[in-house]
Amino acid sequence: MHILVTNDDGITAPGLLALAQAMRQCGDVSVIAPDHDWSGGGHVKTLKRPLRVRKVKLPDATAALTSDGAPSDCVALGVMGFLSRKVDLIVSGINPMANLGQDVTYSGTVTAAMEGIIWGIPSIAISLDAGRSDLGDIDYDAAAKVARLVVRTVLENGLPKGIFLNINIPYLSADEIKGIRLTRQGLRVYRDRLDRRTDPRGNDYYWIGGDAPTGVPEKGTDVGALAKGYVSVTPLQLDLTAYKAISTLSQWGWVNEDSVPVNGAVAAGLTELILV
Amino acid sequence: MHILVTNDDGITAPGLLALAQAMRQCGDVSVIAPDHDWSGGGHVKTLKRPLRVRKVKLPDATAALTSDGAPSDCVALGVMGFLSRKVDLIVSGINPMANLGQDVTYSGTVTAAMEGIIWGIPSIAISLDAGRSDLGDIDYDAAAKVARLVVRTVLENGLPKGIFLNINIPYLSADEIKGIRLTRQGLRVYRDRLDRRTDPRGNDYYWIGGDAPTGVPEKGTDVGALAKGYVSVTPLQLDLTAYKAISTLSQWGWVNEDSVPVNGAVAAGLTELILV
Repeated sequence: MHILVTNDDGITAPGLLALAQAMRQCGDVSVIAPDHDWSGGGHVKTLKRPLRVRKVKLPDATAALTSDGAPSDCVALGVMGFLSRKVDLIVSGINPMANLGQDVTYSGTVTAAMEGIIWGIPSIAISLDAGRSDLGDIDYDAAAKVARLVVRTVLENGLPKGIFLNINIPYLSADEIKGIRLTRQGLRVYRDRLDRRTDPRGNDYYWIGGDAPTGVPEKGTDVGALAKGYVSVTPLQLDLTAYKAISTLSQWGWVNEDSVPVNGAVAAGLTELILV
Repeated sequence: MHILVTNDDGITAPGLLALAQAMRQCGDVSVIAPDHDWSGGGHVKTLKRPLRVRKVKLPDATAALTSDGAPSDCVALGVMGFLSRKVDLIVSGINPMANLGQDVTYSGTVTAAMEGIIWGIPSIAISLDAGRSDLGDIDYDAAAKVARLVVRTVLENGLPKGIFLNINIPYLSADEIKGIRLTRQGLRVYRDRLDRRTDPRGNDYYWIGGDAPTGVPEKGTDVGALAKGYVSVTPLQLDLTAYKAISTLSQWGWVNEDSVPVNGAVAAGLTELILV
């Protein structure tokens, strides 16, 4: 079992070390992580510049690789052949802040797992709800244990095709964690505000400021489970189609559905509309 | 009607100009676009550095704004208050390459629309299947007409809450386009390969190389509609939950579902598992 470990906080993050150490109890581990913080960096495929890769050591003196690419680039590098051995599982984290609700498309932690699933490799994103972005003095002990449990369960059962897992862990000790819940993606409430400042040379610059996001702790959701002290396990997929909206949109009279023959008249009608 | 126009190819892209001009026939237009190419840049929220915004002119001498942030940052800037007037609709494009299947989480064009929907504003991503990344000498005329038709239809009917549209347009003249199809997200086939090179100083660097992605032209999908000469309209949402996988994963015996009382015994059992 060959596990590729990555993250979005960068190669020096304590959460990466905790995860790599936990994963070594589940299989052989390779680490490829970004050389700087990519939090909120999205699902990147770096095509306009080449990537560099350097050999480094983690604080426990084990070998690791670091790249100037995004977390998803690190995954791509690993599975495209930078690692000579086939990757069986990708685990990303441990992020020191929860990735809940609509965070999933922003999160480097989660998008690394997205990239893994695009390559057809079972992938898991792991985040701890320490609510801290500074990375310092966070206890990853319980989260590492949960990561091990999740990975062992996944290895034992096998993930359904095309599915990756978004795991969020409450910031509690192992015996305070109430259990594990299968959840759906909940609703984040972002509280961003424009923060306008002036630099020493009199030019304006703008922070995306405001308060940390909250969430709607609805039952059955990732936000809800975490708020109650449970680990949330949300199975995710890359099909974003809003199937329920299709029937509404089909009533707008603008589409040539398969059931509607696209004969000369219909096609002409449409062209007329287009040419307005 | 106040329309915010953005893109991922940057403020100088001909597709942006074509879209801005088309949108001026549907309402008042503000343009905020990145100052460089963000293709494949993902859904970014720039939190670790401030953003700069500059006033510029488009080639048709109309006023526009450009930022060093990602397309999603440009949207956030616009709706957080950089524009004094409330934004009613966000339209992103026209991208000179299709954004199909799993492209949607990578694509700056599509993630700009994602950002719009997070702010609760109807949003549309528009891409042309010219199959070209060089931006030069592409005829955006038919695509601009389709963009206008789509926007007028959306303004007339109103998008369902939380839904944004991913529009892909075949690279044909207006009278060659066969019509419009409502589609689901299809399957992209990526053909990336590691391309290892050595720089003039003897150090290795790595391109994400290989061939352009193809797709499975299945009926009912974006890929399929485009291949047949139709405009594809795919309604997307930000809920990535793989609902169908939940029952499978619940049979793995690792979860405390709501139906299972989380009493001392269950909790202890779980803790024991965690502590393995």
